[in-house]
Amino acid sequence: MGRNLVLTSFGESHGKCVGAVLDGCPAGLALTERDIQPMLDLRRPGQSAITTQRKESDKVEILSGVYRRRTTGSPIAMLMQNKDADSRSYDSLVRKMRPGHSDYTAMAKYGGHNDYRGGGHFSGRLTATHVMGGAIARKLLKDTLGVQTHSYTAQIGSISLEREPTAASLRNIYKNDVRCPDAKTAKQMRNLVLTTKRAGDSLGGIIRSVTTGLPVGIGEPMFGSIESELSRAMFSIPSVKGVEFGSGFSGAATTGSQNNDIYEIRRRRVITRTNNSGGILGGITNGMPVTMNVAFKPVSTIGMSQPTIDIRTRKATTLQVRGRHDPCVVPRAPPVVDSLVSLVLADLALVGGFVKRVL
Amino acid sequence: MGRNLVLTSFGESHGKCVGAVLDGCPAGLALTERDIQPMLDLRRPGQSAITTQRKESDKVEILSGVYRRRTTGSPIAMLMQNKDADSRSYDSLVRKMRPGHSDYTAMAKYGGHNDYRGGGHFSGRLTATHVMGGAIARKLLKDTLGVQTHSYTAQIGSISLEREPTAASLRNIYKNDVRCPDAKTAKQMRNLVLTTKRAGDSLGGIIRSVTTGLPVGIGEPMFGSIESELSRAMFSIPSVKGVEFGSGFSGAATTGSQNNDIYEIRRRRVITRTNNSGGILGGITNGMPVTMNVAFKPVSTIGMSQPTIDIRTRKATTLQVRGRHDPCVVPRAPPVVDSLVSLVLADLALVGGFVKRVL
Amino acid sequence: MGRNLVLTSFGESHGKCVGAVLDGCPAGLALTERDIQPMLDLRRPGQSAITTQRKESDKVEILSGVYRRRTTGSPIAMLMQNKDADSRSYDSLVRKMRPGHSDYTAMAKYGGHNDYRGGGHFSGRLTATHVMGGAIARKLLKDTLGVQTHSYTAQIGSISLEREPTAASLRNIYKNDVRCPDAKTAKQMRNLVLTTKRAGDSLGGIIRSVTTGLPVGIGEPMFGSIESELSRAMFSIPSVKGVEFGSGFSGAATTGSQNNDIYEIRRRRVITRTNNSGGILGGITNGMPVTMNVAFKPVSTIGMSQPTIDIRTRKATTLQVRGRHDPCVVPRAPPVVDSLVSLVLADLALVGGFVKRVL
Amino acid sequence: MGRNLVLTSFGESHGKCVGAVLDGCPAGLALTERDIQPMLDLRRPGQSAITTQRKESDKVEILSGVYRRRTTGSPIAMLMQNKDADSRSYDSLVRKMRPGHSDYTAMAKYGGHNDYRGGGHFSGRLTATHVMGGAIARKLLKDTLGVQTHSYTAQIGSISLEREPTAASLRNIYKNDVRCPDAKTAKQMRNLVLTTKRAGDSLGGIIRSVTTGLPVGIGEPMFGSIESELSRAMFSIPSVKGVEFGSGFSGAATTGSQNNDIYEIRRRRVITRTNNSGGILGGITNGMPVTMNVAFKPVSTIGMSQPTIDIRTRKATTLQVRGRHDPCVVPRAPPVVDSLVSLVLADLALVGGFVKRVL
Repeated sequence: MGRNLVLTSFGESHGKCVGAVLDGCPAGLALTERDIQPMLDLRRPGQSAITTQRKESDKVEILSGVYRRRTTGSPIAMLMQNKDADSRSYDSLVRKMRPGHSDYTAMAKYGGHNDYRGGGHFSGRLTATHVMGGAIARKLLKDTLGVQTHSYTAQIGSISLEREPTAASLRNIYKNDVRCPDAKTAKQMRNLVLTTKRAGDSLGGIIRSVTTGLPVGIGEPMFGSIESELSRAMFSIPSVKGVEFGSGFSGAATTGSQNNDIYEIRRRRVITRTNNSGGILGGITNGMPVTMNVAFKPVSTIGMSQPTIDIRTRKATTLQVRGRHDPCVVPRAPPVVDSLVSLVLADLALVGGFVKRVL
Repeated sequence: MGRNLVLTSFGESHGKCVGAVLDGCPAGLALTERDIQPMLDLRRPGQSAITTQRKESDKVEILSGVYRRRTTGSPIAMLMQNKDADSRSYDSLVRKMRPGHSDYTAMAKYGGHNDYRGGGHFSGRLTATHVMGGAIARKLLKDTLGVQTHSYTAQIGSISLEREPTAASLRNIYKNDVRCPDAKTAKQMRNLVLTTKRAGDSLGGIIRSVTTGLPVGIGEPMFGSIESELSRAMFSIPSVKGVEFGSGFSGAATTGSQNNDIYEIRRRRVITRTNNSGGILGGITNGMPVTMNVAFKPVSTIGMSQPTIDIRTRKATTLQVRGRHDPCVVPRAPPVVDSLVSLVLADLALVGGFVKRVL
Repeated sequence: MGRNLVLTSFGESHGKCVGAVLDGCPAGLALTERDIQPMLDLRRPGQSAITTQRKESDKVEILSGVYRRRTTGSPIAMLMQNKDADSRSYDSLVRKMRPGHSDYTAMAKYGGHNDYRGGGHFSGRLTATHVMGGAIARKLLKDTLGVQTHSYTAQIGSISLEREPTAASLRNIYKNDVRCPDAKTAKQMRNLVLTTKRAGDSLGGIIRSVTTGLPVGIGEPMFGSIESELSRAMFSIPSVKGVEFGSGFSGAATTGSQNNDIYEIRRRRVITRTNNSGGILGGITNGMPVTMNVAFKPVSTIGMSQPTIDIRTRKATTLQVRGRHDPCVVPRAPPVVDSLVSLVLADLALVGGFVKRVL
Repeated sequence: MGRNLVLTSFGESHGKCVGAVLDGCPAGLALTERDIQPMLDLRRPGQSAITTQRKESDKVEILSGVYRRRTTGSPIAMLMQNKDADSRSYDSLVRKMRPGHSDYTAMAKYGGHNDYRGGGHFSGRLTATHVMGGAIARKLLKDTLGVQTHSYTAQIGSISLEREPTAASLRNIYKNDVRCPDAKTAKQMRNLVLTTKRAGDSLGGIIRSVTTGLPVGIGEPMFGSIESELSRAMFSIPSVKGVEFGSGFSGAATTGSQNNDIYEIRRRRVITRTNNSGGILGGITNGMPVTMNVAFKPVSTIGMSQPTIDIRTRKATTLQVRGRHDPCVVPRAPPVVDSLVSLVLADLALVGGFVKRVL
């Protein structure tokens, strides 16, 4: 992914490790593992009652591209070991296809050669590699342009955040398990997750992302538009099924006079009164915050018994998965969304010449 | 756009022409202008009371890559002249920024060097280049794999299509001006467009796309997933602000047991009872129809008077655009969505080895 | 070709036209057809007794990407009609394979669907599309960085230029038919070409290219090195079979103490006493002139009778090609080499941030 | 590097490790470390008196993409630790620029942030990452198409191999330190290296590569030609300054009637009597062996005292490098050339549909 800033991910959920190589990062950026680890810790499993109980320390190690605590301009390779992989529960899954899961399509595509344990390369665990690269991109954008990205849980199942968070409440995102800036809604969401988990079922939800501080003019025309590149990145996250910018799907029901954002000059800068465009016009940033909603389907692996087929006998059967799995991945997604947003915007900022190759 | 099947678009709304080069099309595909023109005619302006009155014949000419009515394997260049461009009404727009339009961001990005007339390279007229390439990709998919794509208007403003269309009603899409498979809903939509147009306002809406006949296994992991590549293509269409697959945003409010699609064997093939996944699991086709909704914002250029700024004096002013423009682009979008869907799927089918390089 | 500055070529020797799209050119570059035509004229056929007698006016038309005589930042499409294509002589070539020519491999690759007339898309005529894009890249490099490229004929058949040309003699390159900076050698070369032509045979040769004015630091590590990208471009020219930089193949026979270029400070700038590196160290420009030799094989299509096979009967036969063809393409190659050098260096200058996106 | 088979390299000579990620390898290829290690061993330093005395075990570890001894279709990450890095001798090199070396250009490009120890990311040690990926590509080509690549030392300094090796002598390449198929020439080369080493000087040379078993039709037109892609890969090897195919530079001095390869039918296959084309016509394989010569300049780091500049004081000074370095890299290059040839051809075979995505 990326034109001038390229991320390559590798690894499997139950293999030796997961890792990433970030190529094209400008030279001279101050960087150590401590700039990456906190963001990885925020998506780490086993941290609360509402996520999978898999225990991983998820310690990242930088293998290359950094010398004397600064990036050298060469590819930055990063690695994170797998320690608590428990593959026993996956034996029956070779034959019984999990409804809603990629094991059927992956098996079909790779002729059964895929590593199916824990979802293999398709596992949500691979999003840790996005966080590795994203943490660097995030620091690059912040240090050079002052850009900031905040992603938070806006909906879990039927419970939605009612109001747009304030600058103050954005500081509370990580003060609760579900990563919702409003404490009261967070509590309701948490309870819903626990109840659903007990019933052996799972939940989906919506992550909302807001990025401020972007200059006007980032984004390329056509297939390199901000929306094209951000959506492409978002749909690489397992379980993502919808992406919208600004007023998105609800804007489709309005009229131009309602949806157009009126320009004004405020403190010598061009701003818009509303932000139905999500900060993007013609695929290019207009200086307003870039806002995006990302829809996650409910986790497909559930504890309840489900009808399915045995792929070898090609007959109907019943499946009940035990193992450890998230009842809802949404609370673990904000750092991943933040990371991919940062990677995409840093890449386009480099392509557009907004960030230099040597700092 | 594309890895093995690459589309390059060029041209401006009020320049000499718009055109496209499609590189990587397999050799031996039967092809003449008559395979492309009908699809271009379906998006052509000036066809009914509900679209812009710009009169263009939009005749495509194939310049290269075809010999003796078959593709040669070399790049296929196609061209379409602009004839009825009327740039007079755009003079005031150099200074007065249209709310919701790309003229501000394009001007900022290109230092005022952009061709602002009619939106220049950012114009919806450039979607004709997607149709040029898409018509070829569509024929390739149909002739080799039997794939078929149907896109139709599912919502305009507040009026939605209530029921999923049947195979029979899909044949009616182009029997009305708004491209809605249900005649009664189509009439309501048409009336809403006409009323809104008279009020000097505009409308948005939703296009729904359904693709059948795809084999299991198309799509690459991560950033090459079907959803990543399709959404990337969709967001290259001007005015698109949201994309969802299968149950999409509404699926985010459900549970796993509700949203999972149960597998069955029917006539020796693996199918699913429901299709909440939109035919895609792990970014890879599962053999069910690929379903997608695409949200269009209301056209930003409206006849009503709007407050805005003069970018030179940087003072508040008022803008009233005359000129010709669509009150709603949704009725002209189905061939464009079809085309980009075909381009993306043909490219991924080639990458995955599902279509050969010589037919 | 290219990462930030991308050239797409299309067309066939005996089709309607040849053309190119250049995407990624910075906005604001002063540009009209008159900046491109002179370079095209220098490679145009039919200009002297030593090139093919095909008569083409080779008038280029800019179709898009330029507004008010400046680039807009959008893709620049250019077109040139074919007028004097004479395909009659190619009928027998469908079956009789020309030794040393691409018609056999093209036929095999494209299952016989390729346009074989005049070499089709593989024709040297396609190098006109490199000149279209290259003329723009050349102007961009000159206007922004002061870079200049001179390519000239250094060898035809057994006749070589003995001495390195001076700055003064470089102005004489286009004062003779063979494009050799030394008048006396040029005359010998011309005579050799005429004698060989009369004998129904053909010649190869070597083009030498020298580029001055490059800043230190252009070029990416590994596969993006100056040498990697330049050689990749050179080998896209039909008939090119060898590329070397600086002391190249002859340097391989020396020792480090002989081949190393000693650094000095002259007028506050770091220079080297000799230039065996060809201005490139570690794939990156060192500020000295970039020097390159490009070897062209003799034209494969010759008037003499040659043994070959009939690809349908798969039996031995004899081939004698009539038609018009160059007895030596080397004299027409300097503008092509110049163009590709400019395209590659402009792309790498953009990737490295040496040239801005808006001028 | 690569379109469908993509290699990403990382690491530094004196950092923690060097590694590679190979993405796009078909699923189902039998693979363990034992398929890669022998080729790495052949380029390993410290094996004889004529290479650097750095002692590295160079044990490769596969981190991902392989399950049950077969490739899964997911990215294959590989790693090799650095153990015997001795950075002490590089302290003075921060200021004193080595003539002919990349330390000056790398420092200029990366603003001094580059890891200069042992050449950092520009080190020849990085060619081990090409061997990692190349060993897999080589096995893929052999197992699926029966392709074989042999690269050997054809020249060191002034000593050249006189005759083309026979199929029998190709088996002797690795029976001597210099990797020359002729034992007598090998001895002369070895003596020259030892003499030159003692004098504190270094040598260059030429590697010749021959690849057999390729089907007709591999290679893409223009910038994706076999020659374009192979040369691009070769020039990524440090010290390479020239590449030619078939008769190359010497062919430029001949006539068409001399250089054209005459077709014949032998055992129902189309062959050519000679192979001046190097097995490539129009950038596409013609079924004959692909032959290539690669010129290496003499190693720039030498033991002799050399004049140079101090980059901080910008004054003249003298440099004498101690440390360990190869007096000639040519004997270590054959596995690297083999690897890059395999990577390029496997990629183009995948793009062209000659190798399937699932074995």
